[in-house]
Amino acid sequence: MKVVVERATLLKGLGHVQSVVERRNTIPILSNVLLNAGEGGLRLMATDLDLQVVEVVEAQVETPGATTVSAHTLFDIVRKLPDGAQVELTVANNRMTVVAGRARFSLATLPREDFPVIGETDLPVAFTLPAETLRNLIDRTRFAISTEETRYYLNGIYMHVTEAGRMRAVATDGHRLARVELALPDGAADMPGVIVPRKCVSEIRKLLDEADGPVEISLSPSKIRFQIGNALLTSKLIDGTFPDYSRVIPTNNDRLLKIDPATLAEGVDRVTAIASEKTRAVKISLDRDKVTLSVTSPENGTAAEDLAADYAAQPFDVGFNSRYLLDILTQVEGDSIEVHLADAAAPTLIRERTDSEALYVLMPMRV
Amino acid sequence: MKVVVERATLLKGLGHVQSVVERRNTIPILSNVLLNAGEGGLRLMATDLDLQVVEVVEAQVETPGATTVSAHTLFDIVRKLPDGAQVELTVANNRMTVVAGRARFSLATLPREDFPVIGETDLPVAFTLPAETLRNLIDRTRFAISTEETRYYLNGIYMHVTEAGRMRAVATDGHRLARVELALPDGAADMPGVIVPRKCVSEIRKLLDEADGPVEISLSPSKIRFQIGNALLTSKLIDGTFPDYSRVIPTNNDRLLKIDPATLAEGVDRVTAIASEKTRAVKISLDRDKVTLSVTSPENGTAAEDLAADYAAQPFDVGFNSRYLLDILTQVEGDSIEVHLADAAAPTLIRERTDSEALYVLMPMRV
Repeated sequence: MKVVVERATLLKGLGHVQSVVERRNTIPILSNVLLNAGEGGLRLMATDLDLQVVEVVEAQVETPGATTVSAHTLFDIVRKLPDGAQVELTVANNRMTVVAGRARFSLATLPREDFPVIGETDLPVAFTLPAETLRNLIDRTRFAISTEETRYYLNGIYMHVTEAGRMRAVATDGHRLARVELALPDGAADMPGVIVPRKCVSEIRKLLDEADGPVEISLSPSKIRFQIGNALLTSKLIDGTFPDYSRVIPTNNDRLLKIDPATLAEGVDRVTAIASEKTRAVKISLDRDKVTLSVTSPENGTAAEDLAADYAAQPFDVGFNSRYLLDILTQVEGDSIEVHLADAAAPTLIRERTDSEALYVLMPMRV
Repeated sequence: MKVVVERATLLKGLGHVQSVVERRNTIPILSNVLLNAGEGGLRLMATDLDLQVVEVVEAQVETPGATTVSAHTLFDIVRKLPDGAQVELTVANNRMTVVAGRARFSLATLPREDFPVIGETDLPVAFTLPAETLRNLIDRTRFAISTEETRYYLNGIYMHVTEAGRMRAVATDGHRLARVELALPDGAADMPGVIVPRKCVSEIRKLLDEADGPVEISLSPSKIRFQIGNALLTSKLIDGTFPDYSRVIPTNNDRLLKIDPATLAEGVDRVTAIASEKTRAVKISLDRDKVTLSVTSPENGTAAEDLAADYAAQPFDVGFNSRYLLDILTQVEGDSIEVHLADAAAPTLIRERTDSEALYVLMPMRV
C-alpha cells in the first residue's frame, strides 16, 4: 500500500472514525483503524464490535492495499503535523511508514484480515431524515436514556411507528421520559421498533455537528446504518423489548401551570446553589398565579425564590429532582410551557404546547 | 450586620478570595469567608491557615458587623444571581440572609471570632514590581517547582538578592532548574532569601491575570504580602534552606547548538505522538548544522524528524524528558535559543541569549 493524503482531509476522516475506538481494549486489533487504499480513495474504518464507522477520504493511491494501525496514535500524529502537509502512508514488512515533510513515523501494524467487520447489507427498511430533524430528535430524548446496565433495554432511544402512522423516539430511565413525534418519512412505514444504543446515539450526534442536508437511515430488526456526510455508521441494535411506556404518560392531570421555561430554569439553578450535592430535590409550591421554589440543605441553609406564573387550580407542593427538571427545561423553546400536574406523587407531564412534537414526563420526589 | 452590594462587585471580590479555600476541610471554619462590613465597605477574607486573601469591596453599609459563611456556597449563589442585581446581606440569629430580587437564601454562619487570621504587620522589607515583571518571573520559573513533598524546601520559588546586587527567582525539582534575574528594586537590598510556596505563587498568578500597574510586596523572613489591585494576599513562607543551586549551573559546556525554539518545540511535540506515556524521552542526535529528534515506543513504533540548526561541535546523541524540554521551550521568546551541551550525562544550559534575564538547566535522560 502506498497513498498520499492531504493532512486536513486525513485528520477530518480519522477524527470521525477514531472516536468509536475505546481507550482500553482487551482485543488488540480493536485499538486499530483499518486503512484500505483502493479505487475510491482511502477508506478508514474503526469498530468496537457493536458500532463501526467508515469514511472514504480523497487520496492519491499509488499502490492499493490495506493494513491496520493504532487509531489514536495515528490521529495524534496527523493532528500534530503542520497544516497543509502532504502525508505519505506506505506499508512494507508489517510496518506502516508515515512521512510528512521532514518527519517520519514507523508504526506497528496488525493484519487487516483479523479486523472485525459488521455487515452492512440486509437492511430492508430505508428512509431519509433532515440532519436538523435528527439532531432535534436526539437532543430532546438522549438525556433520559437510562445508565443502569441491568435494564439494558432502556440504554438507548426507542424508535418506532405508531398506530396512527407517526414516527416516535422515546427514552426513559424510570424517573423521567422524553418522547418526540414526527411525520412518518417515506419508506419508514414497515419499520420495526428498534432501540438505538447510547454510544451509537452519541457518535451520530457528533457527526451531526458538522452535517447538514439529508441523513440516510437503513435498518433491520438487528442493525441500523446512518449515512451522514461522508461517514457511514453501522450499529447493532439493543436486543430487548422496550416497555409499554404509554401507560406512564398521564392523560388526566387536571392542574395546569403555565410558566416561562427560562425563568423557571434560572430560578431552579439558583435555589439549588445552596445544596452541596448535584441532584438535590427542589420543592415547587404552587399558589394562585405564583410558584415558590425552595431548597433546604442540612449543612448550608435554605433558599427560596418566587416566580410569576399562570396557575388557577388548588394550591399544593410538589418536589422534583432539580437536575432532571433542568434537563427538560434546557430542551424546550419559546416563552411558555405547560406543566400538567395531578398531585405530589403522580407523574407530571411537561410540554411546550398541546401540539408540540416533544413531551416529557417527570416523576416527583418526596420533599 | 446589614449591607447592600452590587452583584458584579461582590462576585469579583468573592472570586478573588474563594479560590484560596480548599474543597475539603477538617476545620469547618476554613470553608468559610469572613465578611466584615465597616467604614471602608465590605471586607472579604479567606484563608487556608498558610495563605490568606483579603479584598475590600464597595458596599452600602447600613449596619456594621461581621460573620462567616461557606465561601463556595456564597460564591455559587452570587454567580447565579441575575446580572445587575443588588444583593442585600443581613445577619440575625446566627444566620445570614442573602436577598436579591425575588430570591432569598438563609445561610448557616460560624462566629467571626473563631476565624483564623495571619498577621500582616512586622514586614520590614518593602518594594514594588510592575505586574508584568512579576507575571514573567512566575511564568518562567513555576513549572520547575518540585512536587515532592519530602523535599518541601523545593516546593516554591526561591527569591533572593545576589552578591552582585541583583534580584533572583529560582525553582528546581532536581531534574530541571529555572532562574530569572532582575535589577534590584528600590527597598529590596536588605531582603532575606525567601521561598514562596507553590499555592501562593498560583494565587498571585491568578490575580495578576486581571492586574496591571505596580504590585507592592512586603516581607519578613517568615511571611510575604502582595498588594495586587484591591486584593491583599499574605502567605507564610517555606521554613527551609534552598540548596546552593549555583553548583548545578554549568559554565564550561563547550558544545553550542543554536536553534529556533518554536521549530524545536513542534518537532518534539510531533515525535512524542508515537509514545503512549506522557513523559517519554526524546533523543536529540546532533550533527553538523542538523539535529534529528527521535522517539522509540515498544508498543507503537518509532518517530524521527530532522531540523535545521546551527551546530559545529562534535556529533553526539543526548536524551531529554520531552515534557521538561517543552516546558522550557514554551517560555522562551525570539527565533533562536542557545543550548550549551557538554555530553550525554551532564547538565545542559538553555537560554535565549548570553544576556537573557532567564536561564534554564536541564538534566539529560539516558536514551
